[in-house]
Amino acid sequence: MRYAPTQAPVFTLTTGPVDAYPAVLRGLASPVLYDYDPMFQATYQRVSEKLVPLVASETVPVILHGEPIMALEAAVASLVAQGDVVLNLVSGVYGKGLAPWIERAGGVVETLAVPYDRVIDPAEVAAALSARPEITVVSVCHHDTPSGTINPVEAIGKVVAEHGKLLLVDAVSSFAGMAVDAKNSHADLFVTGPNKCMGCPPGLSILGVSHKGWAKMKANPDAPRASMLSILDWEEAWRADRPFPFTPSVAEVNGLEAAIDLYVAEGPEAVWARHALTAAACRAGVLAMGLDIWPAEESFASPTATAVTMPAGVDEQKLRDEARARYGVVFSSGRGETAGKLTRIGHMGPTAQPIYAIVALAALGGALTALGHAVDTGKGVAAALAAIDAG
Amino acid sequence: MRYAPTQAPVFTLTTGPVDAYPAVLRGLASPVLYDYDPMFQATYQRVSEKLVPLVASETVPVILHGEPIMALEAAVASLVAQGDVVLNLVSGVYGKGLAPWIERAGGVVETLAVPYDRVIDPAEVAAALSARPEITVVSVCHHDTPSGTINPVEAIGKVVAEHGKLLLVDAVSSFAGMAVDAKNSHADLFVTGPNKCMGCPPGLSILGVSHKGWAKMKANPDAPRASMLSILDWEEAWRADRPFPFTPSVAEVNGLEAAIDLYVAEGPEAVWARHALTAAACRAGVLAMGLDIWPAEESFASPTATAVTMPAGVDEQKLRDEARARYGVVFSSGRGETAGKLTRIGHMGPTAQPIYAIVALAALGGALTALGHAVDTGKGVAAALAAIDAG
Amino acid sequence: MRYAPTQAPVFTLTTGPVDAYPAVLRGLASPVLYDYDPMFQATYQRVSEKLVPLVASETVPVILHGEPIMALEAAVASLVAQGDVVLNLVSGVYGKGLAPWIERAGGVVETLAVPYDRVIDPAEVAAALSARPEITVVSVCHHDTPSGTINPVEAIGKVVAEHGKLLLVDAVSSFAGMAVDAKNSHADLFVTGPNKCMGCPPGLSILGVSHKGWAKMKANPDAPRASMLSILDWEEAWRADRPFPFTPSVAEVNGLEAAIDLYVAEGPEAVWARHALTAAACRAGVLAMGLDIWPAEESFASPTATAVTMPAGVDEQKLRDEARARYGVVFSSGRGETAGKLTRIGHMGPTAQPIYAIVALAALGGALTALGHAVDTGKGVAAALAAIDAG
Amino acid sequence: MRYAPTQAPVFTLTTGPVDAYPAVLRGLASPVLYDYDPMFQATYQRVSEKLVPLVASETVPVILHGEPIMALEAAVASLVAQGDVVLNLVSGVYGKGLAPWIERAGGVVETLAVPYDRVIDPAEVAAALSARPEITVVSVCHHDTPSGTINPVEAIGKVVAEHGKLLLVDAVSSFAGMAVDAKNSHADLFVTGPNKCMGCPPGLSILGVSHKGWAKMKANPDAPRASMLSILDWEEAWRADRPFPFTPSVAEVNGLEAAIDLYVAEGPEAVWARHALTAAACRAGVLAMGLDIWPAEESFASPTATAVTMPAGVDEQKLRDEARARYGVVFSSGRGETAGKLTRIGHMGPTAQPIYAIVALAALGGALTALGHAVDTGKGVAAALAAIDAG
Repeated sequence: MRYAPTQAPVFTLTTGPVDAYPAVLRGLASPVLYDYDPMFQATYQRVSEKLVPLVASETVPVILHGEPIMALEAAVASLVAQGDVVLNLVSGVYGKGLAPWIERAGGVVETLAVPYDRVIDPAEVAAALSARPEITVVSVCHHDTPSGTINPVEAIGKVVAEHGKLLLVDAVSSFAGMAVDAKNSHADLFVTGPNKCMGCPPGLSILGVSHKGWAKMKANPDAPRASMLSILDWEEAWRADRPFPFTPSVAEVNGLEAAIDLYVAEGPEAVWARHALTAAACRAGVLAMGLDIWPAEESFASPTATAVTMPAGVDEQKLRDEARARYGVVFSSGRGETAGKLTRIGHMGPTAQPIYAIVALAALGGALTALGHAVDTGKGVAAALAAIDAG
Repeated sequence: MRYAPTQAPVFTLTTGPVDAYPAVLRGLASPVLYDYDPMFQATYQRVSEKLVPLVASETVPVILHGEPIMALEAAVASLVAQGDVVLNLVSGVYGKGLAPWIERAGGVVETLAVPYDRVIDPAEVAAALSARPEITVVSVCHHDTPSGTINPVEAIGKVVAEHGKLLLVDAVSSFAGMAVDAKNSHADLFVTGPNKCMGCPPGLSILGVSHKGWAKMKANPDAPRASMLSILDWEEAWRADRPFPFTPSVAEVNGLEAAIDLYVAEGPEAVWARHALTAAACRAGVLAMGLDIWPAEESFASPTATAVTMPAGVDEQKLRDEARARYGVVFSSGRGETAGKLTRIGHMGPTAQPIYAIVALAALGGALTALGHAVDTGKGVAAALAAIDAG
Repeated sequence: MRYAPTQAPVFTLTTGPVDAYPAVLRGLASPVLYDYDPMFQATYQRVSEKLVPLVASETVPVILHGEPIMALEAAVASLVAQGDVVLNLVSGVYGKGLAPWIERAGGVVETLAVPYDRVIDPAEVAAALSARPEITVVSVCHHDTPSGTINPVEAIGKVVAEHGKLLLVDAVSSFAGMAVDAKNSHADLFVTGPNKCMGCPPGLSILGVSHKGWAKMKANPDAPRASMLSILDWEEAWRADRPFPFTPSVAEVNGLEAAIDLYVAEGPEAVWARHALTAAACRAGVLAMGLDIWPAEESFASPTATAVTMPAGVDEQKLRDEARARYGVVFSSGRGETAGKLTRIGHMGPTAQPIYAIVALAALGGALTALGHAVDTGKGVAAALAAIDAG
Repeated sequence: MRYAPTQAPVFTLTTGPVDAYPAVLRGLASPVLYDYDPMFQATYQRVSEKLVPLVASETVPVILHGEPIMALEAAVASLVAQGDVVLNLVSGVYGKGLAPWIERAGGVVETLAVPYDRVIDPAEVAAALSARPEITVVSVCHHDTPSGTINPVEAIGKVVAEHGKLLLVDAVSSFAGMAVDAKNSHADLFVTGPNKCMGCPPGLSILGVSHKGWAKMKANPDAPRASMLSILDWEEAWRADRPFPFTPSVAEVNGLEAAIDLYVAEGPEAVWARHALTAAACRAGVLAMGLDIWPAEESFASPTATAVTMPAGVDEQKLRDEARARYGVVFSSGRGETAGKLTRIGHMGPTAQPIYAIVALAALGGALTALGHAVDTGKGVAAALAAIDAG
């Protein structure tokens, strides 16, 4: 039997959109209140305040009403003023992707790049900052999802802070899947969203802003105001007694609250642990099958996504099509420079359960074998099980 | 008994966000697919194409992934180029609100304004266009919600078309509640959303674009590209075989499909008829209670919202607080220039059922009486019933 | 406009099934667990224990997995042994309906009946018990829904207890809408369900059993065992460490928990108050319109349903059809002896909000008028509003 | 990491309750209508009629409002009259379980039994019927779930029909998972439910009745009437213009319609194929791991559940606890005589997807190994994958 392309898949093991937790879907289906109803205003403040200990930013996190790409665009446009020299740390497609926005904002891009299977060395950041003291802002993508690699953002943040620079962190696909927040990354703008490891559908962003971050944005005459791209407009909007700049996405906010409640009830450490274990099991299986992971060193690998290097001769699109058609399992492709070179298996939110690694490996191994690149899937599964049992 | 502010209201009779249809809420709660899953890509194309006969635009409508204020901002930024002279028709707060965006885009604003309880006269539009042939774009808000008035957009559109100008129509809170679409309004950019009369939560916008509209945006070097505010980026995104500029709001798209299916199953004409009858009953009741509606003439009044003029001496905020506390009924306030001067009763989507007029009148009359402005609520209800029975 | 019979109504103001609370519907949609999964077993025990303070029975309430008619049948079959003389108190159709089941169980029915617009006098119960000391069981329907009347079950229960008899109370449509429970009614078998005033869909029953009740059932050799009609089988099933006699209705149990949580969060007294006020407003409106309520005295009238006497010459079925077709409002008919003689307006769970009285009165008045029996609906609504405001 | 008993499992791979399809859960969450609302009456008739081609009974199937154990109890009580000699075919715990009900109904039980790892031989049925011509009714459990075995009900039914006897078939856990219906099994009472292979929660039963079946029940003076256990009461209830004997479970009916629609849209043959393939893959894996399946011959094995024989020395309860704690995977135990001797893996409805066999095998193998009974899980998974790929 084969699953038709228009037939529902069985498992969505992508790097996003990911399946939502059932409780989040039920949250989305809650009655829609008027945004100025006092009950919704109270909800909005409560949700915002529930984010405080999770995001660990100096001020109450801002919820933006579009998926995180909007928050990233808004963050760059707000933080980067005309003439700012911005050190953009590039270890992958997403990190590189900030550059055009920096330039659009009138910033001068200084790039510190590494090959896309490696991660940024904090010492090189320090060197770059010492070499060009005119740098005012540093930007980094924590989990460059198209590569499945994790930059050492705590150490990088420490360096940036020591140099007194502002730091923009894109933690969209790592937040809530591992121990990263605005505080431990020393971020002035910490951009994330609930649609990856928190198990919400795409539609909202979350920003943690430091006092310095607010000051810089306010001082920027070109920072978006009276715009969907404005962060400034939303500074006080979390307060029940303040107006919204425009109508918030009520249903998504209800879904977010459900996601936060799940996350807190399970305990962030426990959530991170199952992300880490799922990824570890997945990597163990991939390697045992004789395949490679994309990150040059296993220590670079993300706990929220496993990037599997395509073996020579395997058409990556066909691999994913085969996994879906044969087993109903959906993976993510690479993006940009990594497109065609790797397949990504997401471990995010509801799919960050170790047993999902088995599902992924079986589908991956089966599809590769079907395409003529025979692998020992049983061995991979056995290795993954051993990793789970050791976890 | 009184409803506490943080206790759920019984009826949300606002001009938005409005309650969603139950089937829409269930649609939102559908499994979240990967945006590049072929099943979701097919869904996206199918939803887009289902909009074609409803929006009646020359090209397949664009879905933007933020509530309609985003689409309006994007529309102005895309359509208005440096130096464009834009005739902005202003009969209310929302119409006036386009001006700053036009100026931000480098446009020169030419305003044709009428008092906010009146509507634009197409003959004056013709006169203005004849007087200033350098005008390239005309913008109009069809239902200026803060006033509850409906501009004669078909006649206006005809004039604009005859003069060969481009027309931007904001039909956010009228579309799907009455017979307005891109074709009959001669709109080049027809901006609306599913979050008013289609009974979805806020989070998406819909744009119907003419061939001329696309050409103008493409010719505008400053039209947003590679941005959340871009319309151009999404031109082909409705096609299942084309990429999305960024991740669409999957859950909201599922909700939109449910809303479209409901709308088509009931039949647009039937939906419009119940909006019209609800509003007619509401107005009949308001007038019978000795109150005034805000529109200077009843023919200006919207079928999707009834704006009730505050009687002298009544604090509008207190009125709404009282209606909520006493009866659990939530109304909308005015906005900007109309704030404090009127209360708005929405008739949108699930609340556009004639019997809701009775609920609204009872709560309105009761609250007014409680605040010392005694009205004959029974008489109002009786008049509304008579209107319903005549409908 | 008219609502087609197969088109969804706007308001279901019946005496059941009633609309469910949105949170209950979301509860129903929770993932379905294996009944022997420890998480579900814990849920089942938790839900059962949450019922303890609400039902106030001497032992943990039993949940039966069918709507309350099943619990009533099971209760009679379990409690009544061959030769038991049962005093059946009959003030309406439902009370009378227990007799055949008593006889089927081998009981001898002794009937104390009053006209169906009146309620049982506790003094007459005392007299009957004194006159026939061989009576072992007394049965009473608290809220005889087809009449909309409430028997004084506290006083009756006191009499029964003083005579040392067992008492079976049917509180299906009163429980959670007013202050009635197993304790204050001195019930040995207190039969109710979550599908009326708790706002669940039909599908479950709740039984509160006294120690004497359990003893009597256990001593009855004919009490159902190994049967869907068994109560005995379920005595210990609430405990997480005990087996279920058969598979419980998992989804309905999830819905019940949501309903309990809502009820407790709002506070039973507050819930009862809004039921009482809705009914009071409804009665005030009915009387002000020149109509009669069915109960002979207003003090007999239920806070959870208002039975309106049909005026001479009005076809009751046509009245309800007209209210639905014209306004989308659904009422309940009478049953048995009251069929055709009255229309019932439910005030149960989500519809027990005072403003719903206005909806009911408008639809009732409008439909009567449409059928040629003109009433002053405005006067009715005004009287109801006054009652609400006084509440 | 370990999953706490009160923490949600990841996969419920039981023989029921099974997880419900998402669309069924959304169906359950639909607005609850009054049972006598014409829209619900139309729904009830439509749902009943949609069952006709699926159940393939001579008359419109009856929906009973309790889980299938109720339908089985009702079926025996209705079909078996005082003095009827009933040939009860016993190949497992469920088949045997009918005997006490037959006796309660006044029937004389004639048992044709085989060991619980085998199935009934139609030739022996023929012999038994020839030997005891006074037999009037034959009863058989199609899929004796506690054994995971499938009786050859088509051949048995043919024999029974040829002998002119009435046949009661329990197809609760096979219907909709394989090609069995009232017609091809020659059943006079075909008992099933939507809570297994149709992916609904427990709460409803479905009965297909032949003309002879109705006649026999009507002729039985002891057949339940005016009872929750009555089938007769419901004969005409499917018709929109007939009353319900008592309030149906509205929400469950809505869920059932969603399940039927899914089943028909996918196509019964396609649904059966994925059940069969999932089971085949599971069995292949079990055998490849060196374990045994419970059925004495693979041809006896059910496509909807795989019963795995416990290896000597393994505590079956501990095995299931370990699979849940370690991997979040829930299996079913045996029942009665098979309890402790086997573990069951369900392939029903949403879990009847071949890839679930991999999940099951990994959890089974991992848990066995953890308990000291090392198996080659990788080999099992490889065998299962090969079976899937061959399917």
